[in-house]
Amino acid sequence: MSNPTEGYRFHHSMIRIKDPEKSVPFYRDGLGMKLIRKFDFEKANFSLLFLAYYDGEVPNEPNMEWIFGERLACVELTHNWGTEKQDGYPYANGNEDVGKGFGHLAIVVPDVYAACERLERMGYNIRRKPGPMMGVVNIAFVEDPDKYWIEIVENKPKNQ
Amino acid sequence: MSNPTEGYRFHHSMIRIKDPEKSVPFYRDGLGMKLIRKFDFEKANFSLLFLAYYDGEVPNEPNMEWIFGERLACVELTHNWGTEKQDGYPYANGNEDVGKGFGHLAIVVPDVYAACERLERMGYNIRRKPGPMMGVVNIAFVEDPDKYWIEIVENKPKNQ
Repeated sequence: MSNPTEGYRFHHSMIRIKDPEKSVPFYRDGLGMKLIRKFDFEKANFSLLFLAYYDGEVPNEPNMEWIFGERLACVELTHNWGTEKQDGYPYANGNEDVGKGFGHLAIVVPDVYAACERLERMGYNIRRKPGPMMGVVNIAFVEDPDKYWIEIVENKPKNQ
Repeated sequence: MSNPTEGYRFHHSMIRIKDPEKSVPFYRDGLGMKLIRKFDFEKANFSLLFLAYYDGEVPNEPNMEWIFGERLACVELTHNWGTEKQDGYPYANGNEDVGKGFGHLAIVVPDVYAACERLERMGYNIRRKPGPMMGVVNIAFVEDPDKYWIEIVENKPKNQ
């Protein structure tokens, strides 16, 4: 019998953001993701931004067929127009008493200390300083511009 | 100059769950992911479960080095022990007025109608029936056992 979930794959995680002019530099320049595509939905007053690690050539303004057809693992940022002009933080990061649920997105890096030093120099807030977690791997948490937690985790054991 | 984010990649999204005995069947049997590893932290009273699409052979109880070293895109489920005995839903799904922020995880599938028909038959709740989104691709939303929204999206244009 054929596998009923053949061809299924994990494509993206969506989070709502206040201001793409803050979030794109964080995910693109701070974390090194490519902005694959921004879709603007003028009648509905929102934009979707897809970012991913992708080594190949991204077509100019790829369509949804390309985005969902390629083997990407994306972060999808939803921007409801106008939030960028609001005071404070419109969204819950999922880790406080109110709205707890979602935890974090995690990025694997070769050197968590170097990654955090660079992100801190760029002005981002290191929420948990780099160091061993459960004595096994080095991790840190950095806050994105909406205060979502981004885990930075090293892809080698800590005593290498 | 070398690229300072060389080797960075998106590894996982973490969500807190009430009961792994409900969530594992959903992600494994319903969505076809492999349970890569469950870590139990007895002193801290929680477990972490990593699930991913992975075609290769998963070692028996792979360590964190393997999990973070391999090119996986995982869902990480956090189970704080005891929540499974609570009434109701301990966590916010990120899409209601209280706790809005996180939106969804998205799974690409070859046929969104077949996927939803199967998930519905397994007893899961289809929140948005399959159909075209913005006239471009077919999508649906299904609820996981904690009512997190899982987008099911087709990897081909709708009029193929």
